[in-house]
Amino acid sequence: MLNILYSFGISLAIALFGTPLFIKLLVKRSYGQFIRQDGPTAHYTKRGTPTMGGVVIILASLAGYFGASAILERVPKVSGLLVLLLFTGMGIVGLLDDYIKISRQRSLGLRPWWKIAGQGAVGVAFAVLAINFPNQYGWTPGSFKISFLRDTSVDLSFAGHTLGVVLFVIWANFLITAWTNAVNLTDGLDGLATGASTMVFAAYIIVTLWGISNLCQPGQAGHCYTMRDPLDTAMVAAAIMGACAGFLWWNSSPARIFMGDTGALALGGAYAGLSIITRTEILAAVIGGLFVIIAASDVIQIAWFKLSGGKRVFKMAPLHHHFELSGWGEVTIVIRFWLISALFVAVGLGLFYAEWVVAR
Amino acid sequence: MLNILYSFGISLAIALFGTPLFIKLLVKRSYGQFIRQDGPTAHYTKRGTPTMGGVVIILASLAGYFGASAILERVPKVSGLLVLLLFTGMGIVGLLDDYIKISRQRSLGLRPWWKIAGQGAVGVAFAVLAINFPNQYGWTPGSFKISFLRDTSVDLSFAGHTLGVVLFVIWANFLITAWTNAVNLTDGLDGLATGASTMVFAAYIIVTLWGISNLCQPGQAGHCYTMRDPLDTAMVAAAIMGACAGFLWWNSSPARIFMGDTGALALGGAYAGLSIITRTEILAAVIGGLFVIIAASDVIQIAWFKLSGGKRVFKMAPLHHHFELSGWGEVTIVIRFWLISALFVAVGLGLFYAEWVVAR
Repeated sequence: MLNILYSFGISLAIALFGTPLFIKLLVKRSYGQFIRQDGPTAHYTKRGTPTMGGVVIILASLAGYFGASAILERVPKVSGLLVLLLFTGMGIVGLLDDYIKISRQRSLGLRPWWKIAGQGAVGVAFAVLAINFPNQYGWTPGSFKISFLRDTSVDLSFAGHTLGVVLFVIWANFLITAWTNAVNLTDGLDGLATGASTMVFAAYIIVTLWGISNLCQPGQAGHCYTMRDPLDTAMVAAAIMGACAGFLWWNSSPARIFMGDTGALALGGAYAGLSIITRTEILAAVIGGLFVIIAASDVIQIAWFKLSGGKRVFKMAPLHHHFELSGWGEVTIVIRFWLISALFVAVGLGLFYAEWVVAR
Repeated sequence: MLNILYSFGISLAIALFGTPLFIKLLVKRSYGQFIRQDGPTAHYTKRGTPTMGGVVIILASLAGYFGASAILERVPKVSGLLVLLLFTGMGIVGLLDDYIKISRQRSLGLRPWWKIAGQGAVGVAFAVLAINFPNQYGWTPGSFKISFLRDTSVDLSFAGHTLGVVLFVIWANFLITAWTNAVNLTDGLDGLATGASTMVFAAYIIVTLWGISNLCQPGQAGHCYTMRDPLDTAMVAAAIMGACAGFLWWNSSPARIFMGDTGALALGGAYAGLSIITRTEILAAVIGGLFVIIAASDVIQIAWFKLSGGKRVFKMAPLHHHFELSGWGEVTIVIRFWLISALFVAVGLGLFYAEWVVAR
C-alpha cells in the first residue's frame, strides 16, 4: 500500500505545484495553442492558452513511480516499465506534434505519416516486449488471449507462436491507436479528458488491487487473476492518476493550460497498456465508455457524411461539440460528461466484481 | 450484486427523469429559493431557482431500495430501514423548513427550536432502535463501541447498559447533527454538495461490499467485519448515490434546482447513519473530509469573530464563499472542491483497505 500511496502522492504534488511553473515558462516563450479552425467559433477565445501540459503529466508520473520505488528501495518490474514506455513514447510523439504546431503556427502539426510511424514504432516495441519476460510461473506481462474481465479462451496463437506474435502486435496496436485517438478527440473542452482520465486510472488502481488480493498461487487455476506484476501496475496507475488530478486543478474551467497531443497520446497509450497488462482489454471499453462514445460519434459522423453524400448525424463531431452547438454551456457539458464517465466506471468495476462473485 | 444494481439503476433513472418534472411543478407554483441576504452579492441572480430538490432525491432513493427489494422478492432488513428512516425523517424536517421559507418569503424558515426538536426526535429514535434488533449472533445495527476503521475498544457501555444507551444516543446525535450541518453548509454553490455526496455514497458502496466479502463467520473474531446487514446497507448507499447522480445532472452549473434543506438534512442524516451502521464513524470524517473542512471553516470564523471581538479569518464563511470573494469563478471552486473531495475519498478508502491488509 505504501508503494501506491507514495507513487500517487509524489506525482500529485509535482503536477499540482509544477503545472503553474510550466505555464509561466510557456507564457514567457509565448507558446500558445493554435485552435482548430473548424471548431465551434466560441473556441477562438481559447487561442493563446498554453498547451503541451502533457509534459507535466508525464514528468510527474515518472517521478511518482520512480520516486516511490527509490524511497522504498524497490526494483521496478517489467510490467510497470512497459506501460511507462508506451506512455512516455506516445507522449514524445505527441510532443513533436504539439511543438511543430506551435513553432510553425499551424494547427496541423506532425505530418500524418510521420505520426503513424512514430506511434507504430512505440506500439510495436511495447507489444513485442509484452509477450516476453516470463516470470517463474511463465506469465508474461501481456497475453496471446484476448481478455474481457480476465483472459478469455480466444487465443491469438491458435495457429502457432509466430502468427500469434503477429496477431497480438496487430491487436495491441489496434487498442493503442483506438485509445490514443479516443482520448485526443475527448480533449476538446476544458478539463473533460483530464477528469475522465483521472477516473479511469483510479478504476485501474482498484482493478489491480483486486488482482493483488486474488492473485493465482502456483498451480492454482480458475478463480484467481494472472497479472504478472499487479503491485507495480497499481503504482503506475496511481502515479498517472495523481498526475491527472494535479493537472486537472489548472486544466478545469477556465483552463490555464491544455494537455495537448502530448498528454492525450500519452494517456491513451497508458490506458491501452494497462488494459493489456491487467488482462481487461474489453472491460477497458466499458470503464472508459465516455471516450468510446465520443470517438464513435466522430466515426459515425464521418462515415455517414461519406455514405450519404454530405449529410450529418450530429451538428458537429465529436459529440461534445454537438451539445455546444445545441446551446449547452461548456461547463454543463463537461460536468454531465464526467457524470456519464463516472457511471461507466461504476458499471465496469461492477462487472469486474460481479464476475468474481459469480465465478466463486 | 443484482440488488445493488437495481437499487442504483431505479433511483438514478427516477432522479434523472423526475427532476425536470419536479422543476416544472415548482415553477408552475412559483416556488423559488429565497437567497440568504448575507451571502455573496453575485448570488442574487440565483433568486427564483426552484428549491426542495431533496424531495426528488428522497423519493428516488426510496423507490430504488424498495423497488429493488420488490423485484428480487427480498425482505428489507433492519439496518437499511433504519438508515432510510433517518434519511427520510431528516428530509421531512428540512422540507418543513424549506416550505416555510418559500411560503412566507423569508430566508430563515423553521424556528430554531422547532428544527432542533424535529431533528432530535428523528435522531433519538434512530439511535435507540440501532442498538436493538440483534440478529442470531447478537449483532445489532449500531454498536456501543466508537468505530474508526471498525469498532475500536472505546466502549460507551463501560459503566453499564443504561448509561451506555444514553451515551450512545448522545454520540449518535452528535454525529447526525454534525453531518446534517456540514452538508447544509457545503450546499452553497451549484452542484458542490450533490457532487461530493455522490462520491461519499459511492465510497460507502465499496466499504459495504468489502464488508460483505470479509464478514465475520459465527465464532470468528479479529480479521473480519461485524456489519449486521451489509448487503442491505449497500443497497441503501447505492440508491442514494444513484439519486444524487441523477439530481446532479440538473443541479450542476447552472443549477436548475437546489436540493434545499430537504436534501442537505436528508443526505447528512443518511451519511451519519451509514457510518454508524457500517462501524466507520470516524473514517466517515476522512471520506467526507470536504464537508468537514467546510464546516470547520464556519466554526473557526464564528469562534474567532467572537473571541477576537470582530476579526475574521476568512473573507466569508463557509470556505467556498471565501474563494468566491477572492475572485475564483464559481465553477472553478466547485470543480477544485470536488477534486479535494475525491482525494479525501481515496485516502479514506485507502486507510480502510490498508488496515485490512496490515491486520491480515
